Amino acid sequence: MEEIRLEAVLHALADPARLEVVCFLARTEGEAACSEIDLAVSKSTGTHHYRVLREAGVIRQVYRGTAKMNSLRKADLDALFPRLLDSVVSAAAKRLRRDQGTTSGARRSRAHQGE
Amino acid sequence: MEEIRLEAVLHALADPARLEVVCFLARTEGEAACSEIDLAVSKSTGTHHYRVLREAGVIRQVYRGTAKMNSLRKADLDALFPRLLDSVVSAAAKRLRRDQGTTSGARRSRAHQGE
Repeated sequence: MEEIRLEAVLHALADPARLEVVCFLARTEGEAACSEIDLAVSKSTGTHHYRVLREAGVIRQVYRGTAKMNSLRKADLDALFPRLLDSVVSAAAKRLRRDQGTTSGARRSRAHQGE
Repeated sequence: MEEIRLEAVLHALADPARLEVVCFLARTEGEAACSEIDLAVSKSTGTHHYRVLREAGVIRQVYRGTAKMNSLRKADLDALFPRLLDSVVSAAAKRLRRDQGTTSGARRSRAHQGE
């Protein structure tokens, strides 16, 4: 496995849109297409966020037909940084539920947040 | 307490020099002067790193006489983001021990790392 650096993982997680992708994938516990994860950002910004996550080693991206499928590298991350991913996902999910008054999380508008 | 945001904390931790400060303070379990924490960066860069940590809510800084004393806001962080700080400090400390072949951590030269 290519090197996964702690600082790169923390940097990748230090963004609300990227945290949203990570929380979505943590809930999914499998692969999800980018199109399933409804980020309130432009397509090019979204592509940038997925690249940061992939290059940091947080997610894996594979093509299945024409769809780019994303999954968390949970086993790799848990082995290298025990409890880190779970603690970040828990904190982000708790905040999302509080902010949104919903447990659905990803599929919502964030226009009012000015993010 | 002023708001502590998850993304700001993750961003503050996503830097090797700032992680070193955090690991040092975690080991110290109390206050430490900036001068006790031997970062291999310029004074102005060091000041910047401490400010990022303070503004994110990771550390508290107070003046005692002429010394600026730093301490981790561990209780605040643990209450907001359970296990996050411990998991990051453990991962960073493990990496430091592996990289340095020492358990002393902070007081060493990092010139060879090009950081």
